Amino acid sequence: MRFDIITVLPGLLESPFAHSILQRAQKKGIAEIHVHNLREYTNNKQKSVDDYPYGGGSGMVMQIEPFSNCIEKLQAERVYDEIIFMTPDGVTLNQEMANELSGKENIIILCGHYKGIDQRIRDIYVTREISVGDYVLSGGELPAAIVVDAVVRLIPGVLNDETSALSDSFQGELLDAPLYTRPADWKGHKVPDILLSGDPVKIENWRYEEALKRTQERRPDLLD
Amino acid sequence: MRFDIITVLPGLLESPFAHSILQRAQKKGIAEIHVHNLREYTNNKQKSVDDYPYGGGSGMVMQIEPFSNCIEKLQAERVYDEIIFMTPDGVTLNQEMANELSGKENIIILCGHYKGIDQRIRDIYVTREISVGDYVLSGGELPAAIVVDAVVRLIPGVLNDETSALSDSFQGELLDAPLYTRPADWKGHKVPDILLSGDPVKIENWRYEEALKRTQERRPDLLD
Repeated sequence: MRFDIITVLPGLLESPFAHSILQRAQKKGIAEIHVHNLREYTNNKQKSVDDYPYGGGSGMVMQIEPFSNCIEKLQAERVYDEIIFMTPDGVTLNQEMANELSGKENIIILCGHYKGIDQRIRDIYVTREISVGDYVLSGGELPAAIVVDAVVRLIPGVLNDETSALSDSFQGELLDAPLYTRPADWKGHKVPDILLSGDPVKIENWRYEEALKRTQERRPDLLD
Repeated sequence: MRFDIITVLPGLLESPFAHSILQRAQKKGIAEIHVHNLREYTNNKQKSVDDYPYGGGSGMVMQIEPFSNCIEKLQAERVYDEIIFMTPDGVTLNQEMANELSGKENIIILCGHYKGIDQRIRDIYVTREISVGDYVLSGGELPAAIVVDAVVRLIPGVLNDETSALSDSFQGELLDAPLYTRPADWKGHKVPDILLSGDPVKIENWRYEEALKRTQERRPDLLD
């Protein structure tokens, strides 16, 4: 699977893609992540990528031309399944969408910055608009990293323990049960006896009950 | 405002905090962001921070001791308003929560990794559990960066244009209207005439109608 991320701040994405599971997936050759500097695709000497909004108002708007140049260069090299624009008014990312995207081959992600991007980029090129949540961020870079992380870890072979992704919250219908590890007694705070009982059936039942209770308390909407 | 982020992957957070608005906020002295390496707070020579889950099952669980050592060292230095744990079963971050957090002074954020963290850390130390959305990620580092970005940009003096944050999506009840910038005609794709009319009242009305239409189409829940 290949991601091409187009951004005015390529440096911001350096460390998230160079660690942990995303680093491992790239080393294993399971995922390729390419970050493109939008400023290299301008047609002007100043390498400016934004301009004032038509009709007035605060904030700068990213211009169509640099995005167009970069997207068309990439499209000349391979076919893309999706051109995603990260935006707070997009469809909210969830685990089902991450599962779906993990089956794609080539994805372009556009990161907005400043006030926003020229609507014509969205109308002409973008196939899918995704939000990571109902909050405003400085740009689309962290949301792009979120999408890549959520998707890449689902590709078979990326996680060491294949069962790990399947038992995560949101893959089933319930949140996770509480987890405990050593020591069994930490300054008087003890691990529930049942987890030390060695009885796998009792433990499984306890975990199910705890997961159900936590889901009812925190996210009853997941049980509907 | 000060953030202390505790993580097993401090390097992952280097570039997000060194660019754009978060960099500017730190240079201006408006925000301090400190990233702490959890492995420096272990009591064992191997600097291991995780162990097998009691009761069996896949994945490793982060131990209570390193978090406890780091949190208590920080608490001895200053008073913290919140100790936040980033977790998919927490309360979902939204703009209202970001606004609220932007009024705090000192915040600790704990990043989980692997299968999860020992429940006792949550029971004893954590004051608030936050999720950035209904999807599973490799760890709490990107979610922590999301929280810091969403919150810091709201602190007065961080954004250059004070009106910019107030006119963002989610700060009002409507999504943003479409944005356009030069050129007015790009390969036959034109900017709506009204934005070139120079009539501020008509433009304001058009933007309101478009924002309303977009909100009705994409997020009718925001209008309830």
